[in-house]
Amino acid sequence: MKPLLLNADMGESFGPWVMGLDHEVMPHVDLANIACGFHASDPDVMRSTVRMATEHSVGIGAHPAYPDLVGFGRRSMACSPAEIENLVLYQVGALTAMCRAEGTEIRYVKPHGALYNDMARKPEIFSAVARATKAYDPGLPLLTLATRDTSAIRELAEEQGITLWFEAFADRAYDADGRLVSRAQPGAVHHNPDVIIDQARRIANGHPLIASDGSELTLSADTLCVHGDNEESVASVRAIRQMLNALQTSP
Amino acid sequence: MKPLLLNADMGESFGPWVMGLDHEVMPHVDLANIACGFHASDPDVMRSTVRMATEHSVGIGAHPAYPDLVGFGRRSMACSPAEIENLVLYQVGALTAMCRAEGTEIRYVKPHGALYNDMARKPEIFSAVARATKAYDPGLPLLTLATRDTSAIRELAEEQGITLWFEAFADRAYDADGRLVSRAQPGAVHHNPDVIIDQARRIANGHPLIASDGSELTLSADTLCVHGDNEESVASVRAIRQMLNALQTSP
Amino acid sequence: MKPLLLNADMGESFGPWVMGLDHEVMPHVDLANIACGFHASDPDVMRSTVRMATEHSVGIGAHPAYPDLVGFGRRSMACSPAEIENLVLYQVGALTAMCRAEGTEIRYVKPHGALYNDMARKPEIFSAVARATKAYDPGLPLLTLATRDTSAIRELAEEQGITLWFEAFADRAYDADGRLVSRAQPGAVHHNPDVIIDQARRIANGHPLIASDGSELTLSADTLCVHGDNEESVASVRAIRQMLNALQTSP
Amino acid sequence: MKPLLLNADMGESFGPWVMGLDHEVMPHVDLANIACGFHASDPDVMRSTVRMATEHSVGIGAHPAYPDLVGFGRRSMACSPAEIENLVLYQVGALTAMCRAEGTEIRYVKPHGALYNDMARKPEIFSAVARATKAYDPGLPLLTLATRDTSAIRELAEEQGITLWFEAFADRAYDADGRLVSRAQPGAVHHNPDVIIDQARRIANGHPLIASDGSELTLSADTLCVHGDNEESVASVRAIRQMLNALQTSP
Repeated sequence: MKPLLLNADMGESFGPWVMGLDHEVMPHVDLANIACGFHASDPDVMRSTVRMATEHSVGIGAHPAYPDLVGFGRRSMACSPAEIENLVLYQVGALTAMCRAEGTEIRYVKPHGALYNDMARKPEIFSAVARATKAYDPGLPLLTLATRDTSAIRELAEEQGITLWFEAFADRAYDADGRLVSRAQPGAVHHNPDVIIDQARRIANGHPLIASDGSELTLSADTLCVHGDNEESVASVRAIRQMLNALQTSP
Repeated sequence: MKPLLLNADMGESFGPWVMGLDHEVMPHVDLANIACGFHASDPDVMRSTVRMATEHSVGIGAHPAYPDLVGFGRRSMACSPAEIENLVLYQVGALTAMCRAEGTEIRYVKPHGALYNDMARKPEIFSAVARATKAYDPGLPLLTLATRDTSAIRELAEEQGITLWFEAFADRAYDADGRLVSRAQPGAVHHNPDVIIDQARRIANGHPLIASDGSELTLSADTLCVHGDNEESVASVRAIRQMLNALQTSP
Repeated sequence: MKPLLLNADMGESFGPWVMGLDHEVMPHVDLANIACGFHASDPDVMRSTVRMATEHSVGIGAHPAYPDLVGFGRRSMACSPAEIENLVLYQVGALTAMCRAEGTEIRYVKPHGALYNDMARKPEIFSAVARATKAYDPGLPLLTLATRDTSAIRELAEEQGITLWFEAFADRAYDADGRLVSRAQPGAVHHNPDVIIDQARRIANGHPLIASDGSELTLSADTLCVHGDNEESVASVRAIRQMLNALQTSP
Repeated sequence: MKPLLLNADMGESFGPWVMGLDHEVMPHVDLANIACGFHASDPDVMRSTVRMATEHSVGIGAHPAYPDLVGFGRRSMACSPAEIENLVLYQVGALTAMCRAEGTEIRYVKPHGALYNDMARKPEIFSAVARATKAYDPGLPLLTLATRDTSAIRELAEEQGITLWFEAFADRAYDADGRLVSRAQPGAVHHNPDVIIDQARRIANGHPLIASDGSELTLSADTLCVHGDNEESVASVRAIRQMLNALQTSP
């Protein structure tokens, strides 16, 4: 069984403003989604985050977003597909320069926030992001949400000639379609460490979760998204890391 | 004798605002300095300008600037050398992505406006830009002002292990040191087409100009900076192009 | 009969980028919608545009927008009502300072682009803009689109305790509901000067237009939106001005 | 003796990024210098900070800065006096709107960071800020650094017809001219609470400090600048507040 990789958003500080416990999370993850200056980060933060990822042998992903710094890229914007294609290219390229300066390179692209959500809902936005990713580097995987039925998006990806990596969440509730329950709903976010670890283990083992309607939901995921916002979430990351390590080494 | 290349600032439109007659200038120049979004341009303008340059087999240079859109990068900012190194890297990378999407690549770096001027005056800023350029690609030349005595900057470049390209101006008066006479001075900018063509011819032939103090000034230049701001300057570009073509084909 | 006032978007230049023929349009309009720096304009442009309006005794309106400079405020953004209330306040206040420095004051608020459209479609956005306008100055009118049936928006305005000014267009086709036909449709924009003048005259006289489905459409408008983008539209503004002057002086 | 007022920078959060312990500091100060969106803050943060100041009966000052968000307004920019005049007006106006919405008004203007420093060094920048302040409201005081000899700046202010408020620092070392010792120098910032309280008491009583060259330095200050960056500095604010309260109530 292929190991489940851990990915986390990193490099979300901006100028004098610090966000996230990157130094504490970096040692425990496999992949760092590094902000590219549109929703967070700046050239200095990007450079030092790339360096930190490199020091921990963490794979670097570009984390492009809508151009909305004050809104942290969380507000959908009615950008055209061509605009989206070019703003993704711009951000991926900017991060690449930091990687080249640090002797490394980008391994994947994961859109951020509203762009991530819009890409999952609108084929023309998915295609725009896919075109940008492929235009930059035909071998670069695009990271998207693992749902119950991923056939439509896999078909789109195949048309575009692009590789997908699917990600799942250990601390979020899923609906019957395998989409994340909105944060506005009660029970959308798990806080109990045992529940989080159990969900991570099920995903790693390919065992079913229980969706919000009580149905069984099996997600096929390449990577699990974890968070380093605060000490509580960092503790979860460490616990998930240990659980995954134990899985790997168990006979 | 190596031909004198013509370079021009391009891609300085932004969003709905158009600047420059790029379509008219592109066919006549060898090198396009393409803005990277900090003083002008946006991802869409960058992409289409790269495409246009490629269609005319014009070499693409990154044209990074201070982060000052409203001031068009013309106002010096007290950025630290490390900040300058990273913001140059960021911009060069962003433009590279557009080049990759259009099947081409960056051939040189030319800082814009206040950053160009500050780099020529302050060794620590020159070194920061040089470090960024070299970190991105050790073979990438950095374009700077040809003056009477370039030994100091050539020495700095050698220390950094970076190649310099020197540029001269056909429409600007020079002082005795081979620096541009400030636009605030009378006679700083030539408007007479005959004067401009004559100055371009002298530079192309390695013949001396007359500096503002009456002394002879010989500039050793790889490229001549021309402008596409308006019809008058485009006419100058065409005339200089014809003069250079005639020089090349004369026995 | 109350005279129909002419309003035009003004002050949409930004930094070194010029947009619009403000100097040519200003003498012919009654109201100037001045951009406030979020979709266009900057502090210098705002100041000089306010001064120009004052010199021509043109009433000044704040023209706030979504924070999307590169998109010129034309792309809808998923801002919350509270965010919209505060970003409208911010922009209105910024323009007020320019007015105070020039010895004048703001007479109305007209949202720009996507915010103008969203306000007309979504009551919670209309209410947010209305709250901002009223919080700034309870007597400040809010300018919105005149449609066939304005009872719903007038009711909302009454709840908020805010005055509405309705505007109509002479160069745009209307659908049966009195909404503007999308620019994506053929025939959405009138270019024939005779058609434009005729439509302006009907609106000024309270006579019906013919909507896109052939039905009669009577719009009750306080002001007509005109454009100073290019020489053609400025010629229309002059012709409409003359027509309106003739109406006013006819017995 | 007039009481020494305490002022602190407030509202320096931006979008999702939090900065400063505003809630802990607000109850203990007299004046809040509220960021206006150019170096920090956004419309939502400005609104809520104005509301918080109002709830604590704290006087509100506009805290305008150079347009340099990523650099937090700490990097000098070569803006022209006219540009500075207008960007100060813009920011003061924007904050005013928040004040009007909360039923209060601006009581003074205190430039931030590099603009504050440049204003103290360059008469043309001081005059530009003074013109903006006076154009907005002729009675609005401008806050500047108390030094040994303030005759030159008081003369400039008199020419401009503007009121000055002088501020001093309890946690910074002063040189013989009464200027702040650069943070790059050892001993520039006091960390010992006893030293800070002692310096605050001397300033409040009009007693001399000891400058960095050992000379006595008497500062005539209207207000003392305090900081709410972290728990340590908040503790200092509380201690200074208690000391000042005791001074006021002592016979």
